[in-house]
Amino acid sequence: MNCSMLRAASRPLQTLRRSANVRTTSFPLQNCRWASSAVFNWEDPLAASELFTEEELAIQDTARQYCQERLLPRVLEAYRNEDYDRNILLEMGEIGLLGASIHGYGCAGASTVASGLITKEVERVDSGYRSGMSVQSSLIMTGIYEFGTQEQKDRFLPQLAKGKLLGCFGLTEPNHGSDPGSMETVAREHPTRKGYYSLSGTKTWITNSPISDVLLVWAKLESTGKIKGFLVERSKCPPGTLETPAIKNKTALRASITGLIQLDECPVPVENMFPDVEGLAGPFTCLNSARLGIAYGVTGALEDALSRAREYALERKQFKGNPLAKYQLIQKKLADAATDAAYGTLAATQVSRLKDAGKSAPEMISMVKRQNCDRALANARTLQEIFGGNATSDEYHIGRHVANLFVTQTYEGQSDIHSLILGRAITGIQAFV
Amino acid sequence: MNCSMLRAASRPLQTLRRSANVRTTSFPLQNCRWASSAVFNWEDPLAASELFTEEELAIQDTARQYCQERLLPRVLEAYRNEDYDRNILLEMGEIGLLGASIHGYGCAGASTVASGLITKEVERVDSGYRSGMSVQSSLIMTGIYEFGTQEQKDRFLPQLAKGKLLGCFGLTEPNHGSDPGSMETVAREHPTRKGYYSLSGTKTWITNSPISDVLLVWAKLESTGKIKGFLVERSKCPPGTLETPAIKNKTALRASITGLIQLDECPVPVENMFPDVEGLAGPFTCLNSARLGIAYGVTGALEDALSRAREYALERKQFKGNPLAKYQLIQKKLADAATDAAYGTLAATQVSRLKDAGKSAPEMISMVKRQNCDRALANARTLQEIFGGNATSDEYHIGRHVANLFVTQTYEGQSDIHSLILGRAITGIQAFV
Amino acid sequence: MNCSMLRAASRPLQTLRRSANVRTTSFPLQNCRWASSAVFNWEDPLAASELFTEEELAIQDTARQYCQERLLPRVLEAYRNEDYDRNILLEMGEIGLLGASIHGYGCAGASTVASGLITKEVERVDSGYRSGMSVQSSLIMTGIYEFGTQEQKDRFLPQLAKGKLLGCFGLTEPNHGSDPGSMETVAREHPTRKGYYSLSGTKTWITNSPISDVLLVWAKLESTGKIKGFLVERSKCPPGTLETPAIKNKTALRASITGLIQLDECPVPVENMFPDVEGLAGPFTCLNSARLGIAYGVTGALEDALSRAREYALERKQFKGNPLAKYQLIQKKLADAATDAAYGTLAATQVSRLKDAGKSAPEMISMVKRQNCDRALANARTLQEIFGGNATSDEYHIGRHVANLFVTQTYEGQSDIHSLILGRAITGIQAFV
Amino acid sequence: MNCSMLRAASRPLQTLRRSANVRTTSFPLQNCRWASSAVFNWEDPLAASELFTEEELAIQDTARQYCQERLLPRVLEAYRNEDYDRNILLEMGEIGLLGASIHGYGCAGASTVASGLITKEVERVDSGYRSGMSVQSSLIMTGIYEFGTQEQKDRFLPQLAKGKLLGCFGLTEPNHGSDPGSMETVAREHPTRKGYYSLSGTKTWITNSPISDVLLVWAKLESTGKIKGFLVERSKCPPGTLETPAIKNKTALRASITGLIQLDECPVPVENMFPDVEGLAGPFTCLNSARLGIAYGVTGALEDALSRAREYALERKQFKGNPLAKYQLIQKKLADAATDAAYGTLAATQVSRLKDAGKSAPEMISMVKRQNCDRALANARTLQEIFGGNATSDEYHIGRHVANLFVTQTYEGQSDIHSLILGRAITGIQAFV
Repeated sequence: MNCSMLRAASRPLQTLRRSANVRTTSFPLQNCRWASSAVFNWEDPLAASELFTEEELAIQDTARQYCQERLLPRVLEAYRNEDYDRNILLEMGEIGLLGASIHGYGCAGASTVASGLITKEVERVDSGYRSGMSVQSSLIMTGIYEFGTQEQKDRFLPQLAKGKLLGCFGLTEPNHGSDPGSMETVAREHPTRKGYYSLSGTKTWITNSPISDVLLVWAKLESTGKIKGFLVERSKCPPGTLETPAIKNKTALRASITGLIQLDECPVPVENMFPDVEGLAGPFTCLNSARLGIAYGVTGALEDALSRAREYALERKQFKGNPLAKYQLIQKKLADAATDAAYGTLAATQVSRLKDAGKSAPEMISMVKRQNCDRALANARTLQEIFGGNATSDEYHIGRHVANLFVTQTYEGQSDIHSLILGRAITGIQAFV
Repeated sequence: MNCSMLRAASRPLQTLRRSANVRTTSFPLQNCRWASSAVFNWEDPLAASELFTEEELAIQDTARQYCQERLLPRVLEAYRNEDYDRNILLEMGEIGLLGASIHGYGCAGASTVASGLITKEVERVDSGYRSGMSVQSSLIMTGIYEFGTQEQKDRFLPQLAKGKLLGCFGLTEPNHGSDPGSMETVAREHPTRKGYYSLSGTKTWITNSPISDVLLVWAKLESTGKIKGFLVERSKCPPGTLETPAIKNKTALRASITGLIQLDECPVPVENMFPDVEGLAGPFTCLNSARLGIAYGVTGALEDALSRAREYALERKQFKGNPLAKYQLIQKKLADAATDAAYGTLAATQVSRLKDAGKSAPEMISMVKRQNCDRALANARTLQEIFGGNATSDEYHIGRHVANLFVTQTYEGQSDIHSLILGRAITGIQAFV
Repeated sequence: MNCSMLRAASRPLQTLRRSANVRTTSFPLQNCRWASSAVFNWEDPLAASELFTEEELAIQDTARQYCQERLLPRVLEAYRNEDYDRNILLEMGEIGLLGASIHGYGCAGASTVASGLITKEVERVDSGYRSGMSVQSSLIMTGIYEFGTQEQKDRFLPQLAKGKLLGCFGLTEPNHGSDPGSMETVAREHPTRKGYYSLSGTKTWITNSPISDVLLVWAKLESTGKIKGFLVERSKCPPGTLETPAIKNKTALRASITGLIQLDECPVPVENMFPDVEGLAGPFTCLNSARLGIAYGVTGALEDALSRAREYALERKQFKGNPLAKYQLIQKKLADAATDAAYGTLAATQVSRLKDAGKSAPEMISMVKRQNCDRALANARTLQEIFGGNATSDEYHIGRHVANLFVTQTYEGQSDIHSLILGRAITGIQAFV
Repeated sequence: MNCSMLRAASRPLQTLRRSANVRTTSFPLQNCRWASSAVFNWEDPLAASELFTEEELAIQDTARQYCQERLLPRVLEAYRNEDYDRNILLEMGEIGLLGASIHGYGCAGASTVASGLITKEVERVDSGYRSGMSVQSSLIMTGIYEFGTQEQKDRFLPQLAKGKLLGCFGLTEPNHGSDPGSMETVAREHPTRKGYYSLSGTKTWITNSPISDVLLVWAKLESTGKIKGFLVERSKCPPGTLETPAIKNKTALRASITGLIQLDECPVPVENMFPDVEGLAGPFTCLNSARLGIAYGVTGALEDALSRAREYALERKQFKGNPLAKYQLIQKKLADAATDAAYGTLAATQVSRLKDAGKSAPEMISMVKRQNCDRALANARTLQEIFGGNATSDEYHIGRHVANLFVTQTYEGQSDIHSLILGRAITGIQAFV
C-alpha cells in the first residue's frame, strides 16, 4: 500500500525535538506536590500530544521531518523570488501527505487530527507551502471525494494523491470575495459540442492555478441559475479557452503560486461536472475542510515564530550583558504566544475529533479558523518586536510568518465575516447587510 | 453515603437549559454536507460537553440547579449589602458540592473535571460565591487532605465537607502579596504552654476569615525559618489572641466575606500543625488546586455575561426598531466572548484531565488561570458595553460580573506574575527581580 | 462682580502640586543638548499648560483647590452610600464654577478651555461630581443661554449660576437611548388651561432629577411632531403630575444622584418653552457642550488614577524589597496612561479653542469624547492591576474611577455610536441601521 | 537665496487635495447650532492646520506636490527591486527639503513644524523615502550643525543641503542596538599618520551607508573611553579601510538603501572629529531630532493608509451591492485610524513648538515617537483588513505601509525602550536591567 511509508513512520525525530524540558530554578509559586510528576514542556504547554494516538504522532513526526529537512532549506529563496517548486507536491505525495484523511484511492485514510498535524508541520515552515498543500488535499481532493462520480474519483484521486496531477479550486471572483453566491462565471450548454458545457468567467487569487492540471471551477448553470462544480482539464482545453496567468509581486505567501483562471467559452464535458451537489453546499464543504486545516496550520507558524523569538531572546544581549529573555516585557510576549498556540491546538483538535464523530457544525470551524488565525497573527506580530531591527532581515524568518499570517486571517472567510457567521449563530439574526 | 444525592442526580434541568438550538437562515458560508448532522449550540460552541462523562454532566446539572434556584435569587441583595449567608456552605455541603474531588471523608470523590464544573456553575451566579466555596474546597480541605495527619483528616474533613465547620486559608499578608515567601507571621515555641506553638502576625484579604471555625494559617517556624501550616481552631483560642475583622466597602466580590486574621501570641497545639510539608510547597499545592477551579469558574461568569448580553441585545430596540443584536459591532462582541469561553473551557478540561492522570505541571495551571481570567474579564467588559447606560443598574448583573472578574485576575497569582512564571518556564530565566 | 473670586484666583496650590520634577539618573537615550533647558514633568508630559492663559491657569488652580480640599474628603462616604450633597452645587456656584463659559448673568465668561479645566479638576476627584456639575453648566444653563427667551435667561440663569436653583436635562427615555429622535414624551395643548401645554412621558437616567428645581424636558409637540424644549418648574407642578424617583443601587457614579422624570399631564406654560429651536438641534447643542466637558474631564480622572498608581507602585515592595515601580510591566502601564492623558488633553484643548473661534464641528467633539473616554477607561483598568488585591479596597479610589469611567464611555453618545458618527463623516454613508 | 523656491511656494495643490468636505446626511447626534459654521474634514479631523502658519502650510504644499508627483510614481518598482534612486536626495535638495530647520548654509531655516510637515508628506508616500531623507536632514546635518566646527559646517552643510553630498549616521552595531553605550568601534591615535585617528569597527542597519559620501561615525576614543563623532569622507579613505556593503532581501523599507559600515584601521584626520561633544549626548541630540521627524512622518503614512482604505471601502461592493464602507465593522476601523492620526499630529506639533521655544525635553520626544509609531502601525494593520485578499497585491500599497511602519516602531528607540524611558521619568527608577 503506497501510504505505508507514512503509516509506518515511527522513528523519533530527535534532531528536530529541541530541548523541551527547561529545568526551572526554585522560586515562588512553583513547587507543587501533586503535580511533581510532570514537567512543563514549553513547546506543548498543555500537553496536547496526550490527545493524539500513536499513529497520529508518527504521522506528525514524518511530516515534521520532511518539512524541516526538505522544505525549510528552500523557503528563503522561494519567498524572495516568488518561486514555487511544483516538485514539492510530488514529494508530499510520495510520503503520503496529500489527502491524508481520504479513505482509499491510495490515500492514508488517517484521522482529521492527523491531517491537521500534517498541515501544522508544513505551516511551521511556511503558510504558503501549507496553502499549496491545502488546495490539493482539502479543496480539490475533498471536493472530488465528496461530490464526484465514481469515475471521477477513480480517474483523478490516485494521481492527485501522488502529486502527479496538480489541482486548484476556482471559487473567488474579482468582484466577489466574501460573497461567492454572487459569482458571474457561467456554464452554458455548449453551442456546438454535444455533451459539453461552455464555461466563461474569471476567478482570482487562486492558489496553484498557473501550475494546475485539473481545475475545480464553480460556475452558475445558465439553465437553472444554480452553482455547479466542474473539473476542467487543462490538457483538453482548446487554445484560448483557458488562461491561468500568475499574480506576481505579492506582499505575502510568496513561496506559493497564485493566479487567475480565465475561461473563455471553455468546453467541459458533462461527465466532468459533479452530478448532484448544487449551490454553495459544494464549495463550502471543501472550504470547511480547508479551514479546519488552516486552524491547525497557523498554530504551527505561531509555534515556529515563538521558537525563533525565544532563541533570539536567549542569545541576544543588551544592557550589561543580559539576554533579552531576562526582561519582563519580553517574557510576557513569549507567555502570550505560548498560551494562544496551546489553546488553539486544543480547539482545533476538539473540532477535528467532533468532525470524525459526525458531530461538528460549520460554525465550529468558523470559530477555530477565525480565532486561531487572529491569535497567530497578533502574537507573531508581537514576537516580531523582540527581533528589533533584525526583524527586517528575512533570514530571521519572522517577517515572513507575519506577512503570511495576515493572509490566513483574510482568506477562506475573512475574520470579520466569521465573526458575523458566529454572531448569526448566536443571535439568530444575520448582520451581513 | 451522604454524597449519594450528588452522584444520583440525573434529571435534566429543562427549565434551565435555554433555547440552545438557534436555527440559522440560509446564508453564505453555512451549508455543509459533512457537518449537517450537528447543530451549533451557542452555549457550548465547541461541544465541550462531549468530553464529560455521564456522571460529570449529572453533577454539573445538580450544581446548576442549586445555583440557579437557590443562589441566584439572593445574590443581588447580598452584593448590595456585603452580606454573605453562611448557610450557603451548609447547603452546598448537603448536596455534596464541597471538596467534591476528595475521596472518602464523606466527599464525592468525583473527578477534577466534575469539581471544575461545580465551580463553573457557582461562578455563573457570582464569583464571590465561588470564592467562598473554593476556600472551603480547594484551600483548606485540599490542604488537610494532602498534608494533614490522619487524625486531622478524621477530625476536620467530614465536618468541612458538610459545611458544618467553615474554614479559611491564611497566606497573604499586608506587605506580601505576590511574594508570600517573605511572610512575617511567625510560630514560636509557646513560652508557657507545653506542646503548643505561639502564633503572631497578620493575614489580609482572607475570604471567609470572619466566619471561619478553623483557620489554616501559614507561618514561619522561628526555630527553622521554614514555613509550616497550622490549623487554628477559633473555639480554642484564648480571648485576644485571634481577631478576624471583616473588610468592608469592597469594590467587588461583595457577596463574599473577606477579612483579616490577626494573631497575637495565639496558642496552637503541635498536633494542629501539618507534620511534613515545609516551605511554599504546602500553600502552593492548595493554591494550584484553587487556581484550576478559578480557571474553570470564570468561564461560568463569562457565559452568564454572554447569555445576559445576548438576551438584552435581542430585546433592546434602537433605530427603526431593530434589535441591538442586528448590529455588526454587537455581534462581534458576542462572537468574541463565546469563543473565549469555549476555548477556556477546553483548556481547563485538558489540565483537569492531566491532573487526574498525574501529568499536570504547575505552569499549566498558571497558563489556564491567567488566560481564562484575563479573557473572562476582557470579554465581560466588552459585553458590558452592550447594555449601555443600563449597565449601571445592578439588576442587569453585568456590572457585578465585571467587578468580580477583575479580582479573579488579581488574586491567587496576579496575571502578570503568572506571565513571569510562564516566561521563566519558557526561557529558563526568572525575571521577577 | 460675583465671579471675581474665580477670576482673581492666582495663588499657587503648592500643597497640591506634587513633586513634579523627577531627576532622572544618567542613562542611555537621555542626554540631549538642545533640549537641556526643559525638564520633563510627568504630570503634564507634553506641557499642555503652555497652551493655557494666565487666567485659565488661575481658574484651574482655584478649581483644583476647591476640589481637593472640599470634594475629595467627602467622596468616599458619598459613593458608599449613594449620597449626593446638593450643597456641592451651591459651593461651586459661590466660587464661580457653574456655567463658567457663559457671558453675563453672573457667570465667569471664561473660555471653553477654562471651562474644560474646571471639569477636569472636578473629575480628578470623581466623575459623578463632574456629572452633577455638567448637567447644571452644560446641559441646562447652555440650553437656556442658547435657546431661551430673554425672560427665561433673566429668570433662571443667575440662580442656576449660583447653584441656588438646580436643574436637569430630560432627553433619554427608557426605550430610546442612542436614538432620542424616537422619543415618546409628548406635549399636547392643555385641555383645560389656556396658554399651557400638557406634558406626559418618562425620562430615565437623568442626573440630578430627584433634586432639581427646574427640569429641561424635551418632548414632541403633538401638533407638529417636532421636538421642543420645556422648562418644567417643580414648584409649579400640581401634585401627581411630576415625579422624580431616584435610581438606587447603581454600579457606578454613586456619588451623583440619578433618577427618572415621570410626567403625567403636567401643565407647563407656553412661556416656558424654548421659542425657536426645533428637532434634535436643541438637545444636541447642549450635549455637544457637555461632551466636550466630558472629554476634558475624563483626563482628570485618568491623571488621578495614574498619580495614585504611581504612588502605590513606589511604596509597595515585593520580591527582595524592590518597589513595584521598578518592574518593567508596571512601568509600561504608567507610560501608557501618561501618554493617553497627555494626548487627550491636547486634543480637548484644540477642539475647545476651535469652538471659541467658531471653527468646531460636532464630529470633532464625537472624536475627542469617544477617544478620551475610551482611553481613560482602558488605562484606568490597566492601572488598577498595579494595586493587586488592594484595588478591592475603596480607599485606594481606583475601583471607583474604573467603575465611573465605564459610564462616561457609555453616556452622552456610547462609544460605538460615536464611531459610527465618525464613520459616516469619513465615508458619507450612515451605518446605524 | 537658494531656498527661495521652498519659501515662495504658495500655489494651492488643488489636484492633490482630495474631496475633503463630505456632506453628511441628516441624522441623530449631528446638528448643532453653535458649531454650524465649521465643516468636518476627515483628512484633518481636528483641524491641526489651524495651528500652522502660512509659511508652514506653503512648505507642506510644496513637499506634498513633489512627493505625489515625483516620488509616488516610482515607489512600487523601487520597493519591489530594493532600488533606491539617489537622485531623490538631489531633487529634495533642489527644492529645499533637506535640513529645512537649519539656519544658513543654504538651508530654509524653517520651523520644526515645517520640517515635520515635510517628513509627513514624504512618509505619506513611503517610510523608506522618509528614512533616507531623515538621515540626511536630522542625523548628519543636525549633527554637524550642532557639534561641528565652523570649518566642518562650511565645508559640508551647503553640499549636504543640496543633496550633492550624501551622508549617513553610524551608531548602531551588530551586537548593540538599544544599548549604544556599549559600542565596540574604536578610534586610536593613528600609528603612522600624524594628526589622524585610526577607526576600526562595524556598524549595521545604516540607512544610506552604501551611497554615502560622508559618514558620521561614532566611536570610542581609545585614550579616554569616551564616545566621539567622526566625519569619514569616503573619497579620502585608502582602499580596504572602508566598506559599506548593502543589506539585501529586507522585509520592509525596501525603497530605502541600508547597509553596514566596516572600518578597518581607517585613517580620519583630527579636524574631522567633532571637537567638544563627548559621550552619548552627541548621537542622542541627532536621534531626538530624527525621532521627532518620525513622530510626524508616520502620521503621513497612516493618513495615506486611511485614505486608500476609505477609497477601497467606497468602491468595493459585497452582499447585495453595498459598498464595504456601509458596514459598521469597517467604519469603526476608519474612525479609529482617523482619530489616532489626528491625535498624533497634534502631539507632534506641540512638541515641535516646544522645541522651537527651548521648552522640550527628550522624554517628550520618546512619548510622541513611541505613541505615534505604535498607533500608526496598529491602525495600518487594521486598515489592511479592509482590503481582504487584495491587500496581498502590492498595487494597493497597504502591505508596504504595514511592513514599513513596523520598522519605524523598532528603530531609533524600540517602542518598549521608550516605554522604559518614560517609566523612568515617571517613577525616577530605571528598569532597563
